[in-house]
Amino acid sequence: MADTLDGYELRSLITAEGQLRISREPIAVDDPGPGEVIVRVEAAPINPSDLGLLVDRAIAGTFRTEGTADNSVLVADLPADRLPAVALRVGKALAVGNEGAGTVVKAGPDVQHLLGRKVAAVGGGMYATYRKLPAAATTLLPEDASAADGASAVVNPRTALGFVETMRMEGHSAIVHTAAASNLGQMLLRICLADGVPLVNIVRSEAQAALLRGIGATHVVDSSTPDFRDRLIDAIAATGATIAFDAIGGGTMASQILDAMEVVAARSLESFNRYGSNVMKQVYIYGTLDPGPTIIERTGYAWKVDGWLLTHFLQKANPETLQSHARRVQDELKTTFASRFGATISLSDVLNPQIARAYERKGTGAKYLIDPSL
Amino acid sequence: MADTLDGYELRSLITAEGQLRISREPIAVDDPGPGEVIVRVEAAPINPSDLGLLVDRAIAGTFRTEGTADNSVLVADLPADRLPAVALRVGKALAVGNEGAGTVVKAGPDVQHLLGRKVAAVGGGMYATYRKLPAAATTLLPEDASAADGASAVVNPRTALGFVETMRMEGHSAIVHTAAASNLGQMLLRICLADGVPLVNIVRSEAQAALLRGIGATHVVDSSTPDFRDRLIDAIAATGATIAFDAIGGGTMASQILDAMEVVAARSLESFNRYGSNVMKQVYIYGTLDPGPTIIERTGYAWKVDGWLLTHFLQKANPETLQSHARRVQDELKTTFASRFGATISLSDVLNPQIARAYERKGTGAKYLIDPSL
Repeated sequence: MADTLDGYELRSLITAEGQLRISREPIAVDDPGPGEVIVRVEAAPINPSDLGLLVDRAIAGTFRTEGTADNSVLVADLPADRLPAVALRVGKALAVGNEGAGTVVKAGPDVQHLLGRKVAAVGGGMYATYRKLPAAATTLLPEDASAADGASAVVNPRTALGFVETMRMEGHSAIVHTAAASNLGQMLLRICLADGVPLVNIVRSEAQAALLRGIGATHVVDSSTPDFRDRLIDAIAATGATIAFDAIGGGTMASQILDAMEVVAARSLESFNRYGSNVMKQVYIYGTLDPGPTIIERTGYAWKVDGWLLTHFLQKANPETLQSHARRVQDELKTTFASRFGATISLSDVLNPQIARAYERKGTGAKYLIDPSL
Repeated sequence: MADTLDGYELRSLITAEGQLRISREPIAVDDPGPGEVIVRVEAAPINPSDLGLLVDRAIAGTFRTEGTADNSVLVADLPADRLPAVALRVGKALAVGNEGAGTVVKAGPDVQHLLGRKVAAVGGGMYATYRKLPAAATTLLPEDASAADGASAVVNPRTALGFVETMRMEGHSAIVHTAAASNLGQMLLRICLADGVPLVNIVRSEAQAALLRGIGATHVVDSSTPDFRDRLIDAIAATGATIAFDAIGGGTMASQILDAMEVVAARSLESFNRYGSNVMKQVYIYGTLDPGPTIIERTGYAWKVDGWLLTHFLQKANPETLQSHARRVQDELKTTFASRFGATISLSDVLNPQIARAYERKGTGAKYLIDPSL
């Protein structure tokens, strides 16, 4: 006779009227079958990639609560022109939370050795008290790691390693990145320091710059200062960077990076070339901190602006390289790939309008960790 | 004792004060050495790629003449913020004219067989009465071809063939192009018709649409109509195009094409994916009809916007493919690769402010051919 584990999971719904509704729904998780485990989720980060599905582009000023205290729903309005882009999800209450970590509380007969162990997974629907998953889709955490240590053990580490591998695959030798003080940015910095890859770190404040210098960064450029362009040119000249990874997306940052790279490349030109230099300059946009349009002032024709997505990288990278990445994350989980969170909240807290406004802002150092077991 | 051939060549100068000065300078061309020929240039097109060097971004309203009637200089002002981008050419009077065709009037002792023959060349400085060139850098025209037939025998044909080859190299199967009624656009259309490559032609007027339909185009979309987006989506759905070549550069055209491609790709999605489709969508910008910034509304991460330049393509394409392209241009010079010009003008005419305003507009059907022998 099957037992069930009772709990809750978060779901995000967009109505045909353009209302966003996030609710905590009861779940009853059946016993695991062969090859399956049930994870009690104890730590799941709110990454920018989760926020898109969780709150889409809700107008933060409209966050409010409906329902009873025990059974409340977080409600917000979407911008009027947003519905066409999300038509495929209208009316469907989607489970949210890309990744997380926790303790295996039940295990199929063939995977009993996992019982009681801590694992991480990119399973989707991780903002839940319990999550049934194939054991093969989980990663065993080291004995001394907490669930919080393993919460961000996949997306950020594999993305940062993917950036360095993309640099190598495409023949570049140094990197520029934006939002450099983010958890992901700090991982990239530590990888580049260990691997001897010159790195230009673009941040938005002196406090962020100081944080990165404390880790060992050499080239930190603050985009909020009036001499940003000159300092960026200097840093690109010093490193030879011709590839960038940008988390911002909207506005002119990608263009400013290409411009600075071209200024440096043009210094090697001996005579005027109306097409600019022949040095290929590449910006990958991997995030959407600014959902506005990307504005590119073109100089010459030796430039590229592309999207970058972890799943696409995993499909095209060498399998042996990917295995070595997985091992490195295991080995360096509490050092290179350590994450810091500003606060730990419960599933109910996610529905609190005041807290929602805070995590929706995506501020550096204000990263939230959800512990559904609270 | 060496004879010289006397003539003129056009030169374009930008002064430190931001003045553009185009002049007709006397030249005296020495006898050719071994392996060299002297071409009397009889037909050289004004391509957009020439205009950049010839008039840069001169303010067309300021075109005026200085000097005497016999020795006049065309003068214009540059936008105030333009000087930094052209610093490397300030104070240098540059010879202009990428390509052209004419008659070999002198030939080195080892290349006497070329005497009297018509040749084409991408030699630079082709807006000149005479041009000395290595014979190896010229292309012999078929006996029945005029200089005008051969004037555009390289840049446009090799670019159009390069687009189709780029499509194949990168795994796409149909093409979108803008400014589709240009000489280059018409060549691409004829190549695609012959090769069975589905092509979406974007034009700016019904007259241009009619012209392309007359050649045999199936999918012609007029960006000046209110239902442009819907018609573009229909044409992309019908062809399966996932790569585009854009001559405009500035504004939202690249973004509109990516949007339409994504709408079509998303139709195959069975459930909502916040990253959009996995179908890679590529726009190459190869021209600058609009020098303003490129504005990209991003949807998902499976997209690229890159610069495309013929010289870069020639460096990376397969040498055998390039040889087959050269043969095809020879064989189909008066059919697939025929060019039409709106007017033929002399070197002196280039300095006429009224004519300068006309060729600077780059209007379809108003393409100018320079005949320096006039």
